Amino acid sequence: MTQPEKMLANAIRVLSMDAVQAANSGHPGMPMGMADVATVLFSDYLKYDPAHPHWADRDRFVLSAGHGSMLIYALLHLTGYARPTIEDIRNFRQLHSPCAGHPENFELAGVETTTGPLGQGFATAVGMAIAERHLNATFGDDLVDHRTWVIAGDGCLMEGINHEAVGLAGHLGMGRLNVLWDDNRITIDGAVSMSSSEDIPARYRASGWHVAECDGHDFADIRRAMDEALADPRPSLIACRTIIGYGAPNKQGSHAVHGAPLGGDEITAARQELGWSAAPFEIPSEIKDQWLALGRRSQDTRAQWEQRLAAHAQRGEFERRMAGTLDAATPTKAFIADLLASPQKVATRKASEMALGPLTAALPEMLGGSADLTGSNNTKTAATKPLSKDDYSGRYVYYGIREFGMAAAMNGMALHGGVVPYGGTFLVFSDYCRNAIRMSALQRARVVYVLTHDSIGLGEDGPTHQPIEHIMSMRMIPNLDVLRPCDVVETAECWQLALENAEGPSVLALTRQNLPQLRDSADENRSAKGAYRLHAAEANRRVVIVATGSEVEIAIAVAKQLDAQGIGTDVVSMPSWSRFAAQPASYRDDILPHDVLRVSIEAGTTFGWEAITGISGLRFGIDSFGASAPIEALYDHFGLTAEKIAPQIVAALNG
Amino acid sequence: MTQPEKMLANAIRVLSMDAVQAANSGHPGMPMGMADVATVLFSDYLKYDPAHPHWADRDRFVLSAGHGSMLIYALLHLTGYARPTIEDIRNFRQLHSPCAGHPENFELAGVETTTGPLGQGFATAVGMAIAERHLNATFGDDLVDHRTWVIAGDGCLMEGINHEAVGLAGHLGMGRLNVLWDDNRITIDGAVSMSSSEDIPARYRASGWHVAECDGHDFADIRRAMDEALADPRPSLIACRTIIGYGAPNKQGSHAVHGAPLGGDEITAARQELGWSAAPFEIPSEIKDQWLALGRRSQDTRAQWEQRLAAHAQRGEFERRMAGTLDAATPTKAFIADLLASPQKVATRKASEMALGPLTAALPEMLGGSADLTGSNNTKTAATKPLSKDDYSGRYVYYGIREFGMAAAMNGMALHGGVVPYGGTFLVFSDYCRNAIRMSALQRARVVYVLTHDSIGLGEDGPTHQPIEHIMSMRMIPNLDVLRPCDVVETAECWQLALENAEGPSVLALTRQNLPQLRDSADENRSAKGAYRLHAAEANRRVVIVATGSEVEIAIAVAKQLDAQGIGTDVVSMPSWSRFAAQPASYRDDILPHDVLRVSIEAGTTFGWEAITGISGLRFGIDSFGASAPIEALYDHFGLTAEKIAPQIVAALNG
Repeated sequence: MTQPEKMLANAIRVLSMDAVQAANSGHPGMPMGMADVATVLFSDYLKYDPAHPHWADRDRFVLSAGHGSMLIYALLHLTGYARPTIEDIRNFRQLHSPCAGHPENFELAGVETTTGPLGQGFATAVGMAIAERHLNATFGDDLVDHRTWVIAGDGCLMEGINHEAVGLAGHLGMGRLNVLWDDNRITIDGAVSMSSSEDIPARYRASGWHVAECDGHDFADIRRAMDEALADPRPSLIACRTIIGYGAPNKQGSHAVHGAPLGGDEITAARQELGWSAAPFEIPSEIKDQWLALGRRSQDTRAQWEQRLAAHAQRGEFERRMAGTLDAATPTKAFIADLLASPQKVATRKASEMALGPLTAALPEMLGGSADLTGSNNTKTAATKPLSKDDYSGRYVYYGIREFGMAAAMNGMALHGGVVPYGGTFLVFSDYCRNAIRMSALQRARVVYVLTHDSIGLGEDGPTHQPIEHIMSMRMIPNLDVLRPCDVVETAECWQLALENAEGPSVLALTRQNLPQLRDSADENRSAKGAYRLHAAEANRRVVIVATGSEVEIAIAVAKQLDAQGIGTDVVSMPSWSRFAAQPASYRDDILPHDVLRVSIEAGTTFGWEAITGISGLRFGIDSFGASAPIEALYDHFGLTAEKIAPQIVAALNG
Repeated sequence: MTQPEKMLANAIRVLSMDAVQAANSGHPGMPMGMADVATVLFSDYLKYDPAHPHWADRDRFVLSAGHGSMLIYALLHLTGYARPTIEDIRNFRQLHSPCAGHPENFELAGVETTTGPLGQGFATAVGMAIAERHLNATFGDDLVDHRTWVIAGDGCLMEGINHEAVGLAGHLGMGRLNVLWDDNRITIDGAVSMSSSEDIPARYRASGWHVAECDGHDFADIRRAMDEALADPRPSLIACRTIIGYGAPNKQGSHAVHGAPLGGDEITAARQELGWSAAPFEIPSEIKDQWLALGRRSQDTRAQWEQRLAAHAQRGEFERRMAGTLDAATPTKAFIADLLASPQKVATRKASEMALGPLTAALPEMLGGSADLTGSNNTKTAATKPLSKDDYSGRYVYYGIREFGMAAAMNGMALHGGVVPYGGTFLVFSDYCRNAIRMSALQRARVVYVLTHDSIGLGEDGPTHQPIEHIMSMRMIPNLDVLRPCDVVETAECWQLALENAEGPSVLALTRQNLPQLRDSADENRSAKGAYRLHAAEANRRVVIVATGSEVEIAIAVAKQLDAQGIGTDVVSMPSWSRFAAQPASYRDDILPHDVLRVSIEAGTTFGWEAITGISGLRFGIDSFGASAPIEALYDHFGLTAEKIAPQIVAALNG
């Protein structure tokens, strides 16, 4: 007998409240409130196949309100994904359960992106939608023709990043993006009206969105609103008027159900209210069977797609792109060979542009952009024409002044697959998108951040624009490769490393100012080891100077002064701390021997450099905010010149 | 003879283009485009007295589009502020000139806030406007009755933080906030239409704002729009349709004039276009005199205000509040004395709430809030009733899910003066407002960040919510005091230190989980030195363990195990790295002697701890992302238990 739809939704509600109760922590309110909407989505609208969760043309579903994680765990389980099992759900929020407190993309197929930090799921979905349209423009309807669906709460809509995401999606006309807004009028502190008076639909319309509204507990009305959204060419916000914690008779509608277990008595009352007699974690078979059948809904669609793929002329390229495999013949080696023949003195941001020329020409998956600093970040190449509402085949996004939105969108592109996103802003404004960079790292997303103007070397713009702590503070984000090349050759090497790093993001910290080419050989990618001896002491080695980026030039000048005084000095260029740390001890000890004075030079905080120099080494850097002045004046003012550094090293040796 | 208003504005234009040309860097486009609007503002609307730039009841003017810094430098000079002199302007963007690339509040009176990072000036102004209404409600119209004016560009409006600032100002009905939007339809990358399709007025109206529009080069029309704004009770956006670089005949209206000198030829052409024959940095005396007269416009208003203040019953308290002087009799000592009599095992977030109780009761200048985590951050006290549109005398702001907007607003409150703002979110979401925290530090603003859930100790919410790198990465922001107390006594001490730190912001990193009270004496504020010996080795000291916050309890347990084995072990609690670093070497060497094994324990990255332990010390922490599980399972999983740590110390001693 076909079960009433409400009972399908109640399965989500009961699993959610029981799992939160068993864990004694979690958020029952959202899954119970949005269960009806989610049931409609997974029954009739979402294109997915639990048996093939990585199907390239599946719809992407993003639970932006990630605290309601039990909603997606219940759905994945009920519709027949291999995981989570009911045992996984019993272990909700326990160590090693894939059912973590917030949904994590690396734990479960079907979780397209890690969510929890509010607003980012939504903004990530915008990137997925962009990737879809771009790949559709590249490979056609036969291979790429899917939608992106989001469930978002008031928090996702109130965060600043929402403005950026909405603006970007509206501008680019992302009509295949549909956001189901859990309009329950409750936040953690209480009623939304305590902190906001916004007319949200009006704001969305002002940014080029379509807005539909529905009763989130009326199945027919939900379908009406979804159909309206599908029919409209604009991105759609579907305001689903819901009751948070729906089904918990004494607590629903209040912030008390948001983030705490309902408690035994209320769960008993809710079971009665919902007409649910089964024991915790037991789903009556007639309900489970009906859910499983719904999970098989798109099997035929997928089979037909597989047939189209098998016969498609672009099959090989499409599969390569979706697998994220780089074409082996990247042009970096040839590019570097040219440099060795004809050295270049350029800013590393310019070197990056030079490297990007052949790279973007050779790798069609590269999709660039900048947060309104295209000419400063040097991120645009001849191969990357603009991606616009009128031409999704473009490969360059003018993201606007939206750093956080750009970074989250790039995460979405990388997670969608088929593209390798890179995007630029000033290094100091990595602060504006820092949590999205962290989310790239946590999600193991191949995103390349092109962060230029990477020190006081930017000069006159002054302390608001001069990064001091930024490079070092990013080095401590797990799984983030922070690359700071010292010249045009290293820049090309670092680009190659960033592209090959398929399991995580990379930062390229690049200068505004020109730097001489210091490298005259490139038999291998020397940056790959993170640090290497660029200049060897002529004799009698007593000092090793470690430097990065623009300060390597200074280190070389210091070394020459010291060598001239008979103080043998190595210079080590260290473009990547994390790569160097991963080398065997024998290599590290060779590069950083213990019987010398170790010195660091980096135009940023000296904080943390003790790890490289030892406590007794010398560390040259800047431990205050910067200043506004021409570059030469600043380097002198902050003591970062060979003339000021060399005597201090001599004094330390004699001291 | 009275000069045409256009000539007053042209003085701004010419100074701007000449200073940028002399510096060979800077942004002429905005000051030239907005010169007419700014002339009207400083001639007829803004309440200010250059001879008394710190007059408490002056209007606050914020140049949110800080790259156009020459606009404010020109205005301050022309209207008769002591600085900048014409010589300062000649030295625009040179070392030690107060005319830095972006306007800095600590360089010039009249620059109310440091701007440059887009969107933040606007959001900071919202905080100034809140402070004004709050102080008006406290002290009345006779003492506090001023407006906040902002000049903002498209970048300020496109940034995510704008959504938060607009939402907050609209919700709180900040009718005395007026934003002059430089609607020039140009961004750095080109036309605004390349990256945005937003109907900005519609968005502002949707958030409870009034919107006026004017031709930004028609003086009468500008006045009409400003009068309309003054008449409307809502906060106002005044869309000023302008031509970027107005007056540069061949370049105006294009992004080419945004951020580069015009060049000699174009400057010559502009001089002709503007009817300006004076040499660079020379202002014809009739124009200078007229500007100086305008600068004296509010002298009488100020004199009358001084008379009202002199006669006012609340004069002493008002002056104390505006000077930022704490009442000497803060209740912290009595509070701690009670704790010593009756020890408490509570989370430090709860300890913070307990300390805040008497502090907020005693210090009316404290103005609290949270970004929708009031119950989790424990930031609300009995003394702080809500501040709302209907009651500005309240002392607690429900900021909503707006971390960045909250932090910037707190900067504005602190810079306005008269209030000491504090606000809460989760530590991990310091990422969302990181650049505003940096701006607190750069601006030397007394803002207290209450950042709870400060480690894996938050448990089940998992890696998206568990800070790993955050504490350490904030320690390297100059002029930011990061405080991580270990128990209820240290929490009270740290609150006292944060409040006494009038020249900079403080972070309180606080636990979700309960911690035992470890302190049994408090003859002085021991946290003030940053680190101190909490537990002394019984005898035969061989080990010193340094820990912070929740890990001090673990360190004590390790020490007891080691002491029992005859391995004398000190435990040092280190609530503040920066305060410890500022102690004399004799103190530091006493606390961290060189003849022992030094060990650190902190439930975050081990990155940077070499500075404390030396290279040969041991560092216990977490160098990966966290996980979702109950707290005990997590501490065990990550090896942060006495049972797992003590044997490793023994092994190191024997090794």
